[in-house]
Amino acid sequence: MTELARKFDKDPELEGGVVASSVYFGGRRIADIPIEEAGNWAAKEGHVVWIGLLEPDRELLLRVQRQFNLHDLAIEDAEHPHQRPKIEQYGDALFIVARTAQLVQGRVDFGETHMFVGKGYIVSVRHGVSTSYAAVRQHWESCPTALAKGEDFILYAILDFIVDNYMPVLEQIEEEVDVIEDGVLARPMTAKDIERLYMLRRDLLRLRNAAGPLVEVCRRLTSADLPQLRPAMHPLFRDVTDHIRTVLEKVDNLREVLAFAFEASLLVGQSQETAIAKKLASWAAILAVPTALAGIYGMNFNDMPELHFAYGYPTVLVAIVTICSILYWRFKKNGWL
Amino acid sequence: MTELARKFDKDPELEGGVVASSVYFGGRRIADIPIEEAGNWAAKEGHVVWIGLLEPDRELLLRVQRQFNLHDLAIEDAEHPHQRPKIEQYGDALFIVARTAQLVQGRVDFGETHMFVGKGYIVSVRHGVSTSYAAVRQHWESCPTALAKGEDFILYAILDFIVDNYMPVLEQIEEEVDVIEDGVLARPMTAKDIERLYMLRRDLLRLRNAAGPLVEVCRRLTSADLPQLRPAMHPLFRDVTDHIRTVLEKVDNLREVLAFAFEASLLVGQSQETAIAKKLASWAAILAVPTALAGIYGMNFNDMPELHFAYGYPTVLVAIVTICSILYWRFKKNGWL
Amino acid sequence: MTELARKFDKDPELEGGVVASSVYFGGRRIADIPIEEAGNWAAKEGHVVWIGLLEPDRELLLRVQRQFNLHDLAIEDAEHPHQRPKIEQYGDALFIVARTAQLVQGRVDFGETHMFVGKGYIVSVRHGVSTSYAAVRQHWESCPTALAKGEDFILYAILDFIVDNYMPVLEQIEEEVDVIEDGVLARPMTAKDIERLYMLRRDLLRLRNAAGPLVEVCRRLTSADLPQLRPAMHPLFRDVTDHIRTVLEKVDNLREVLAFAFEASLLVGQSQETAIAKKLASWAAILAVPTALAGIYGMNFNDMPELHFAYGYPTVLVAIVTICSILYWRFKKNGWL
Amino acid sequence: MTELARKFDKDPELEGGVVASSVYFGGRRIADIPIEEAGNWAAKEGHVVWIGLLEPDRELLLRVQRQFNLHDLAIEDAEHPHQRPKIEQYGDALFIVARTAQLVQGRVDFGETHMFVGKGYIVSVRHGVSTSYAAVRQHWESCPTALAKGEDFILYAILDFIVDNYMPVLEQIEEEVDVIEDGVLARPMTAKDIERLYMLRRDLLRLRNAAGPLVEVCRRLTSADLPQLRPAMHPLFRDVTDHIRTVLEKVDNLREVLAFAFEASLLVGQSQETAIAKKLASWAAILAVPTALAGIYGMNFNDMPELHFAYGYPTVLVAIVTICSILYWRFKKNGWL
Amino acid sequence: MTELARKFDKDPELEGGVVASSVYFGGRRIADIPIEEAGNWAAKEGHVVWIGLLEPDRELLLRVQRQFNLHDLAIEDAEHPHQRPKIEQYGDALFIVARTAQLVQGRVDFGETHMFVGKGYIVSVRHGVSTSYAAVRQHWESCPTALAKGEDFILYAILDFIVDNYMPVLEQIEEEVDVIEDGVLARPMTAKDIERLYMLRRDLLRLRNAAGPLVEVCRRLTSADLPQLRPAMHPLFRDVTDHIRTVLEKVDNLREVLAFAFEASLLVGQSQETAIAKKLASWAAILAVPTALAGIYGMNFNDMPELHFAYGYPTVLVAIVTICSILYWRFKKNGWL
Ligand SMILES: [Mg+2]
Ligand SMILES: [Mg+2]
Ligand SMILES: [Mg+2]
Ligand SMILES: [Mg+2]
Ligand SMILES: [Mg+2]
Ligand SMILES: [Mg+2]
Ligand SMILES: [Mg+2]
Ligand SMILES: [Mg+2]
Ligand SMILES: [Mg+2]
Ligand SMILES: [Mg+2]
Ligand SMILES: [Mg+2]
Ligand SMILES: [Mg+2]
Ligand SMILES: [Mg+2]
Ligand SMILES: [Mg+2]
Ligand SMILES: [Mg+2]
Ligand SMILES: [Mg+2]
Ligand SMILES: [Mg+2]
Ligand SMILES: [Mg+2]
Ligand SMILES: [Mg+2]
Ligand SMILES: [Mg+2]
Ligand SMILES: [Mg+2]
Ligand SMILES: [Mg+2]
Ligand SMILES: [Mg+2]
Ligand SMILES: [Mg+2]
Ligand SMILES: [Mg+2]
Ligand SMILES: [Mg+2]
Ligand SMILES: [Mg+2]
Ligand SMILES: [Mg+2]
Ligand SMILES: [Mg+2]
Ligand SMILES: [Mg+2]
Ligand SMILES: [Mg+2]
Repeated sequence: MTELARKFDKDPELEGGVVASSVYFGGRRIADIPIEEAGNWAAKEGHVVWIGLLEPDRELLLRVQRQFNLHDLAIEDAEHPHQRPKIEQYGDALFIVARTAQLVQGRVDFGETHMFVGKGYIVSVRHGVSTSYAAVRQHWESCPTALAKGEDFILYAILDFIVDNYMPVLEQIEEEVDVIEDGVLARPMTAKDIERLYMLRRDLLRLRNAAGPLVEVCRRLTSADLPQLRPAMHPLFRDVTDHIRTVLEKVDNLREVLAFAFEASLLVGQSQETAIAKKLASWAAILAVPTALAGIYGMNFNDMPELHFAYGYPTVLVAIVTICSILYWRFKKNGWL
Repeated sequence: MTELARKFDKDPELEGGVVASSVYFGGRRIADIPIEEAGNWAAKEGHVVWIGLLEPDRELLLRVQRQFNLHDLAIEDAEHPHQRPKIEQYGDALFIVARTAQLVQGRVDFGETHMFVGKGYIVSVRHGVSTSYAAVRQHWESCPTALAKGEDFILYAILDFIVDNYMPVLEQIEEEVDVIEDGVLARPMTAKDIERLYMLRRDLLRLRNAAGPLVEVCRRLTSADLPQLRPAMHPLFRDVTDHIRTVLEKVDNLREVLAFAFEASLLVGQSQETAIAKKLASWAAILAVPTALAGIYGMNFNDMPELHFAYGYPTVLVAIVTICSILYWRFKKNGWL
Repeated sequence: MTELARKFDKDPELEGGVVASSVYFGGRRIADIPIEEAGNWAAKEGHVVWIGLLEPDRELLLRVQRQFNLHDLAIEDAEHPHQRPKIEQYGDALFIVARTAQLVQGRVDFGETHMFVGKGYIVSVRHGVSTSYAAVRQHWESCPTALAKGEDFILYAILDFIVDNYMPVLEQIEEEVDVIEDGVLARPMTAKDIERLYMLRRDLLRLRNAAGPLVEVCRRLTSADLPQLRPAMHPLFRDVTDHIRTVLEKVDNLREVLAFAFEASLLVGQSQETAIAKKLASWAAILAVPTALAGIYGMNFNDMPELHFAYGYPTVLVAIVTICSILYWRFKKNGWL
Repeated sequence: MTELARKFDKDPELEGGVVASSVYFGGRRIADIPIEEAGNWAAKEGHVVWIGLLEPDRELLLRVQRQFNLHDLAIEDAEHPHQRPKIEQYGDALFIVARTAQLVQGRVDFGETHMFVGKGYIVSVRHGVSTSYAAVRQHWESCPTALAKGEDFILYAILDFIVDNYMPVLEQIEEEVDVIEDGVLARPMTAKDIERLYMLRRDLLRLRNAAGPLVEVCRRLTSADLPQLRPAMHPLFRDVTDHIRTVLEKVDNLREVLAFAFEASLLVGQSQETAIAKKLASWAAILAVPTALAGIYGMNFNDMPELHFAYGYPTVLVAIVTICSILYWRFKKNGWL
Repeated sequence: MTELARKFDKDPELEGGVVASSVYFGGRRIADIPIEEAGNWAAKEGHVVWIGLLEPDRELLLRVQRQFNLHDLAIEDAEHPHQRPKIEQYGDALFIVARTAQLVQGRVDFGETHMFVGKGYIVSVRHGVSTSYAAVRQHWESCPTALAKGEDFILYAILDFIVDNYMPVLEQIEEEVDVIEDGVLARPMTAKDIERLYMLRRDLLRLRNAAGPLVEVCRRLTSADLPQLRPAMHPLFRDVTDHIRTVLEKVDNLREVLAFAFEASLLVGQSQETAIAKKLASWAAILAVPTALAGIYGMNFNDMPELHFAYGYPTVLVAIVTICSILYWRFKKNGWL
């Protein structure tokens, strides 16, 4: 790792909101440039300008806009996050929105990345949580193939990086789902289980919203009518599509598994409720026996012959114990106790 | 804000049902005109007539119809609200229906806006609750770009305004949903919670009905076969489409979140019912002990030796307390109490 | 209203199964004709024959078939109701099936109308409940536009009439749904509520089946490949489509509202069950106190010092009242009572 | 009915697995032929060979294959039932699979029919329960129209027969559903009801599987690219499609009705459970009154003044009756009893 | 079975990760070759190289890649299992991913097979559980038709084998579902039943994920734009598609049947809960009678005339028995007991 690379890794801001602004030739960085020179460098044959912005303000976006003649609506979108993943063609430039997902202290957090791609330049704009693209930059700088020299390859590299980053998020959710489903079959859900299940559904819903529309974005990136992308790039974008589809399949599986868990939990809960009702009824019946019998021999009638029998009292005690035992045994036998 | 603008802001009616009726040239208002001159002004090269109507009666609609030669069916629709959002081409004119949403005293209310767009003119017809388009008018009048000079841009401005107005409605619903889901996980739903949840689902359903068909309307507005719209307008309508899709995604998320909340509430309720059944059964068992034991020593048998023991009575009291305590401790231990 | 019109209004049958059989020229009725002349009149330039049948027998259908050379399969369908709404092209003729809905003594009833449309003629066949098309006929006869002179306009007028007649049915269902949803939030459903909800779902299902396939029928009627329909008619059929879509949207909304009501009712019911369980448990606990305490002092031990205390009895009474009151107060406080 | 027809009606097997093997010219049967001559007869202009097989063994299928040069995969399929309804084109021949449904002693049973159709021949292979196609054969032999002379018409006649046979099955299910839904609203489901409902859902699921894919099969049969079928046959196959769609609509309706019944049953059951809980709680409260009061006056305190009152005993009895009556009346009034 | 075939059957590894590496001419194996000669042999007219790999390491994949000039992304996928079934065209080669299913000790296990197909060669890569393709190889080597001589036929044979292997898995699940549904209608589900139902849903979900995307893969294999496959192969791939569709239909049926079972179980459970509540309430009422009556005659009032009646005691006993019997009989009669 070079000095420079290490510097990028810490995601330093060259100026407020600018993470990187460099020009490349044949895949090698030849200069770090100010925004105001970006347009000129991009226009030179074989040169690629890559500008990385982090939550830029309007003023900075307007400076970038002037360099590459970007469309007002794209700039408006880039300024305001909370866009859906999409691809839009404005004149010569492509504008692409993708959502990023990240684990932050065990919870899933979502961010957005916007990209402007035109002849000789790419501008990436990060909002909210997301890893710095310094790693992408380093990987790309060390990429030997001729194909890797264009701005379309950088676009691919960033999208691939974003999609790869869904995976650890998904794996974390998968683990939690495993815990839930183990629990669900063992005992009815506790309030804490229900909350966890609820939160996982929310996270999966958001992950689906983040990844789902990217399929269409990548499909458009492999269609023939985008002059910004060389046909040789198509297999790469198809590969990204493929990875998104894998993510979506997993997300949908987990969503369905959680729906199963919900239904299983309802059944387990219902069956436990029934078990308790049976237990309650059984004990109520057993305990009603001494109460009723004792009540009868507690009456104050003048003439109750049993009261004067020699073994009246022990007989009643034995009767009570016997009846209760028989009830207990029968309830036990048919599974109520 | 000019005098004129302030006047529009109060939404004055020039005559019954007419909110505004002006002719523009190069984006500047050059005259406020009576309906009967609208057709002639619209025919002049570079002039745009913008008529704003508010719940007009049939007679007024027929006067407008005569100016622009509008189709009978469109006039019929404009007279009767409760249309679905749609776009219809009648001869040279486009007829567009959109639904508006507004917060009125904390509840969502819905209205409709119908628009006729033809060469040199636009007629907007508002029904039910909806903000006056005076704000749109002001914004447009101050819009500098050449693109903004046509009636198609006014159409875009109104649609964009309508879609932007969905957002505060959605945010209000989002807040209420947050309150509900916080509640749902803490305790079973009360009648009031259920009613609120029910009402939110109704409002979201209506919002979906309002915004959903607009996607198709905007898609048609960006297709090549509508001569009323300049191709340069397409990115603007695509941007509106995009914002509608964002609205729909949020609506669908909230709907799904409410469905989760319903299911979570069922589980929480079931688990609470079970907890109560356990408590009931536990106390019933504990309290049956003194009743049964005391009943036995309340019997009137001649010969009950325990009754004559020196410590008979305290022994029984201690036995009762001991058994009840053991039961209490066991129930506590296995979570029934 | 003319004598003739009034006569049609009563839906008289000229002969068994024939409601009307007339020939029109330039939109004016010029003769009432026997079935056997219909073919000849239809062939004359500018003349339109309109035959209205009501549950005709096979023999009558075969007579009409011979006049216009109708396809065997269409005649078979026209003889047997219970067809799905559809459009079928047999040679030169169109065959169209639509379902009608009507309120009969507060309940929704469904019928069918079949139509044969060819050059110069239209045959309408009604089955089951449905309003007479005399009103359509009158309206059409008084229709001034040139467009209204063809058989395709009559087809439009009938379809429009059928679709308009869905509306009162829908409004009646809407009112009942409103009653149900008001009830659902106030108290758990009674058997009567559940039955009403069930019936409404059935009616809505049928209404959806009736109206749904008409969208496709009307779409086909506005496609370019049907020579029986003049292109100028297309906006009219699109208007009908639009009205059907409005009907469908309302039906789907009501269906979803009833689904919400079902779910809300489950929750309300569950919450009421829980409330009753709490009440039951509370009272059981409160009432167990005097029983247990009194039982203890009803025991017959020789040596129970409390029995001989001066204020033993009132002390126990006070103790019972106090404990019960405390329990009552605590249960009240935490919402169990 | 002729001798011959009656003979076919009994579904005799000319040899093992062969139900019929005849050659027709101009719609009249001119000879019953052995399998080995079928190929030659089929090749003669205007002659049609119709072979009917019943659960043939591999050897018989191979003999038929040799006559018409059928594809290995089709023969494999014809040998092994449990295929999905489909249409497949192998060289010059069509291979069609349809599922048949039949009522066998009140239960729905399913079979399969496979058909090979090529120039001058049709081979039908029946598996499992299904009516003999002798009736189709007779009907076809007596069919006068010129259209009826080809093998494509025979294919139509068999498919029409299969689809018509779904109807009695559907009507039987419809009747059972009616019984269930009448029951569901009157009382909670018994175990027997639940089983019946379960079985009906299974049968409807299978019927949907049988009929559903036939829509696609018939659509393919009316597409332009099948040389085996004359265009004049298209309305006939469209008519079959139409009948299948009617079957499917009914099936889907019944499925939805059963889903309603399930939900209604849940509500009815919940409401009954609540009613029982209320009754239980009410009687528990009422019966606790004498127990508690009598317990108090059963205590053995020295000094209980009420015990010595002149009307102490009747007063307590009256108090018990009064309190119980008031409770009873209040529970009755608010619907708990 | 030859010596060689038996050897393959045991799935020996020629070297680490290589199960087979042979060259064929006219369908006969002419040599077992090292990887490094594969490219040359494949290039010879009429020769087909078939390499079978088992969980190869990266190094082995790279050696194969060099022989056939395979795409980096395909190699990356082949190295990392957990791909979705798909087909991808990279230059001259097809890359196909399929999932395999196998019963391993009564549980369903899933594996993956990746295939590279190009002019003159096929490479199959197995991951996880899956039967060796030695059986496919043997079958193919003995296949006499000319069609069977190409690498596209081998691809077909492997896919057909994979799809055929879904069947025993499905049948095992089908049997377990049968057991569950028999149980569900007889009694409420036990915890064990719920777990089994849960597991089956998981397995069916996975099986659907495995087989579902193969339909699209096979559809692509029968489209005209893949030069690697001869048109004469299309019916074979359509046959595989057909078998997958049968698998999917069965899977979907089973999923729906399990959903029915879940709903039926809820109803059965609810109805059992109600039955227990009725029983509990009935016995509580019956047992409250002696307790209440005995309590009354256990009171200590001075003046209780009944106590001194000659037959007071037996009368009360008879009263208790009578009332209890009447209650018992009434509860029995209306089905509560
Ligand atoms: Mg990747
Ligand atoms: Mg990768
Ligand atoms: Mg897992
Ligand atoms: Mg990949
Ligand atoms: Mg998985
Ligand atoms: Mg669900
Ligand atoms: Mg209207
Ligand atoms: Mg906007
Ligand atoms: Mg905006
Ligand atoms: Mg929220
Ligand atoms: Mg935007
Ligand atoms: Mg969100
Ligand atoms: Mg419950
Ligand atoms: Mg028929
Ligand atoms: Mg209308
Ligand atoms: Mg309403
Ligand atoms: Mg309209
Ligand atoms: Mg509504
Ligand atoms: Mg539902
Ligand atoms: Mg099957
Ligand atoms: Mg038929
Ligand atoms: Mg019915
Ligand atoms: Mg028909
Ligand atoms: Mg369901
Ligand atoms: Mg319960
Ligand atoms: Mg196979
Ligand atoms: Mg096979
Ligand atoms: Mg089964
Ligand atoms: Mg097959
Ligand atoms: Mg089955
Ligand atoms: Mg329950």
